Amino acid sequence: LQMKSSIIRSAASAVARGNFAQISSTHLSFFEKTVGASYVKTKEIDNYTSDWTRQMKGSSDCVVLPSSTEETSAILKYCAENRIAVVVQGGNTGLVGGATPIHDELILSTSRINNHFHLEPSSGVLTLDAGIILAHADNRLTEHGFMMPLDLGAKGSCQIGGCIAAGAGGIRLLRYGSLHSHLLGCTMVDGKGSILKLGGQLRKDNTSLHAAHLAIGSEGQLGVVTSVTMGVVPRPSSILSAMLAVSSYSDCIRILSLARSKLGEILSSFELIDGDTMKCVERHLPLKNVFEGSHNFYLLIETHGSNGDHDSEKLNAFVEEALGAELAADGVAANSEAERTHMWRLREESPIAAAKDGYIYKFDVSLPLEHFYRLTEETREKLMGRARVYCYGHLGDGNSHLNVTTDGEDEELMRELSPFVYNWVVSHGGSISAEHGIGQLKRDYRSLGKSAEESALIRSIKRVFDPHGILCPYKMIPAQE
Amino acid sequence: LQMKSSIIRSAASAVARGNFAQISSTHLSFFEKTVGASYVKTKEIDNYTSDWTRQMKGSSDCVVLPSSTEETSAILKYCAENRIAVVVQGGNTGLVGGATPIHDELILSTSRINNHFHLEPSSGVLTLDAGIILAHADNRLTEHGFMMPLDLGAKGSCQIGGCIAAGAGGIRLLRYGSLHSHLLGCTMVDGKGSILKLGGQLRKDNTSLHAAHLAIGSEGQLGVVTSVTMGVVPRPSSILSAMLAVSSYSDCIRILSLARSKLGEILSSFELIDGDTMKCVERHLPLKNVFEGSHNFYLLIETHGSNGDHDSEKLNAFVEEALGAELAADGVAANSEAERTHMWRLREESPIAAAKDGYIYKFDVSLPLEHFYRLTEETREKLMGRARVYCYGHLGDGNSHLNVTTDGEDEELMRELSPFVYNWVVSHGGSISAEHGIGQLKRDYRSLGKSAEESALIRSIKRVFDPHGILCPYKMIPAQE
Repeated sequence: LQMKSSIIRSAASAVARGNFAQISSTHLSFFEKTVGASYVKTKEIDNYTSDWTRQMKGSSDCVVLPSSTEETSAILKYCAENRIAVVVQGGNTGLVGGATPIHDELILSTSRINNHFHLEPSSGVLTLDAGIILAHADNRLTEHGFMMPLDLGAKGSCQIGGCIAAGAGGIRLLRYGSLHSHLLGCTMVDGKGSILKLGGQLRKDNTSLHAAHLAIGSEGQLGVVTSVTMGVVPRPSSILSAMLAVSSYSDCIRILSLARSKLGEILSSFELIDGDTMKCVERHLPLKNVFEGSHNFYLLIETHGSNGDHDSEKLNAFVEEALGAELAADGVAANSEAERTHMWRLREESPIAAAKDGYIYKFDVSLPLEHFYRLTEETREKLMGRARVYCYGHLGDGNSHLNVTTDGEDEELMRELSPFVYNWVVSHGGSISAEHGIGQLKRDYRSLGKSAEESALIRSIKRVFDPHGILCPYKMIPAQE
Repeated sequence: LQMKSSIIRSAASAVARGNFAQISSTHLSFFEKTVGASYVKTKEIDNYTSDWTRQMKGSSDCVVLPSSTEETSAILKYCAENRIAVVVQGGNTGLVGGATPIHDELILSTSRINNHFHLEPSSGVLTLDAGIILAHADNRLTEHGFMMPLDLGAKGSCQIGGCIAAGAGGIRLLRYGSLHSHLLGCTMVDGKGSILKLGGQLRKDNTSLHAAHLAIGSEGQLGVVTSVTMGVVPRPSSILSAMLAVSSYSDCIRILSLARSKLGEILSSFELIDGDTMKCVERHLPLKNVFEGSHNFYLLIETHGSNGDHDSEKLNAFVEEALGAELAADGVAANSEAERTHMWRLREESPIAAAKDGYIYKFDVSLPLEHFYRLTEETREKLMGRARVYCYGHLGDGNSHLNVTTDGEDEELMRELSPFVYNWVVSHGGSISAEHGIGQLKRDYRSLGKSAEESALIRSIKRVFDPHGILCPYKMIPAQE
């Protein structure tokens, strides 16, 4: 995916380098002694210093790849003593540059911490090393009838430790809940090199603070997650999809309530594609809308269940009622795996279509449902004639992926757009980063809507884990304000 | 419920008073000015200084009942400045004395913080004041088709803020997950009186550390939760129950796997009652086993679903397969609400029957499933002829409520039993407190199985929220070690 984009390619000019040591040959010798010379890289490290979209570019003198919690601990202890700044990197699939160095941070990659994988099949409790790739873990669960509860586009590359650190969401959150629903424990190496074993393998344990949950969404600020213990979920034997064409946003919300009551426990995804996005998909990709004519909104609904007959009876009754009550103008259930795949391609390739539409400005926000689509409408009004505005996303979770495209680079629009969107979102009770995080891309907006008390608390918690501030500097949590 | 018991009635002799101020008339004047004279109580406060079982008894000079976050903040700011120790109390339904004062702590009750209740019906996001009683909240959700995801015996008295602070589990955790699955945000007043608004009303928000989750299971150590925002769940239109009689524990585990695959998304409870417990119930209560003859284990299974026909088809198929495969010796599905209630009384009145059986020693542990029942067997062997041992609990969650009873008070057994059980549990990867917490009852065992690094981390986090250590001293988190 090549994107024309005006996002900042390196944040190095925007933020002063901290008072950290520069990596010397003495340091390199220590790293080599600790993890083995082959796993300390100083050359041909472009894949580590750029993010996967190649939009963000940082620099670093060295990538270290420990293979265990103990090696990670030795490295971080040494970095703390020598005041070496470190950026933590998993599968490098992030969307906000959180894993990309800015000045010259040491890159600590968790890719080699990928050995241990243990499922306890009677309880569905899985313990796995942080460097294991999400799709690999999911595949290994298949034979035991289990499934990883989270699923996202990057599953073929992203690592489970990175998912925890990013607070990954994805397309099944509506059904299975956030990572907080699943995490039971983790091992984290903090910014002093201490090995913290937090939580455990139990579904219920009230013997201490539930500190493992601080790892979720922590973006490497508190430590390096090296092992994760989580509950996994039964793999559904039946997966069904349907699409509805809808005239108004308020009907979309009514259909969401209908889905909750008619599909109940099997409702797994409730995705929205707006009419302009669908036209954009048809314009740029060899994909056809499943409906004749054009509509203002399209909903993609998926069910996961244990009994195909029951599920299709529920899904058909739901679609019929949505049509009968005239909430939906048209509706179709997928009758084959090919039809189901086609429906999901319309949704999952929406970002690709938008990227082909011109210079692109991307947002990942969440909003209370009453404001969800007004942001798109007001952005469209504001940019009338200057840009095209597309909205698709996880409506069931209130998570909108707003995309703005222009034919040529428009610096004035770039300067105006983010403050407009972010201020609108915060003033309507929303989040400026629903699932992608802060990283370096949104660092200038990280305090928006946060109270001084909350910001002070977060900095104090950071200092507990990382007193020298060596972990992932210049990003989500400022050293001081 | 009157229990004959040998548990410590007051921990005051076991732990030295900290260097806190004694409450003076100047302090009382400030409290009265802040919350109103009627809400500062110094007399007839036995209901606050004892726990609900009247087994634990502490003392206090004063109960303060603020009505809002702001009043709570003013009280705690003053207590921090004047070094007044505070114990936080919700519905006072705890089982480990966490809300009972020990020396002379000020009791801060959240009972009057019970005004605000707002459901956003399209998203199912509920914001409510911490003093609202769980059952009241649940009743108010009924008309909107929603339900509180947690359910526990104390629901008629326990407050939602107390549920968060206790990390409450209950009988539906298997289906709906822990409170981490539902909590989106909370307002907490910390030990300096600062008002911390953590998280929010959004299902996805990755703009900061997810610090709201630290409130879960924090037992008042970090602050007073005054408001909670959480996702609630669709109220099931169909609730069905069945019981199975089983010969061996290993068959119980096989039946759990079968239930996961056959009942899938509707499986909501999977409870165990062992044979001795069932006999104890029949001996002491006017309740009859639903099966003829006696069996080693009984399982109570419940489903929650949106379609009664589908659910009963699934449940019948599950029971038939458990019988056909000879995993269960007998099985019966409840055919009426009366039969369902009868089944649940057998399980929910097991603790009452055990309490009538003699002097009682109670445990609330969780264990990996392979060790779940061995603890009961080994305890029985160890105490052969000296005591009776009963096991019932939430098998689906690995949570065993082990009860030991004797005819007369047995001090030697009392001294031996807790260390034996707790060491056994920790050495088998379990938790000495699955859902009840540490409080004062388990304070001597709070460090069991914890690493020095974890203990240091927890103390440091405590200091961030409560630098003067005024909140709930002498309990889960020691001031220093």
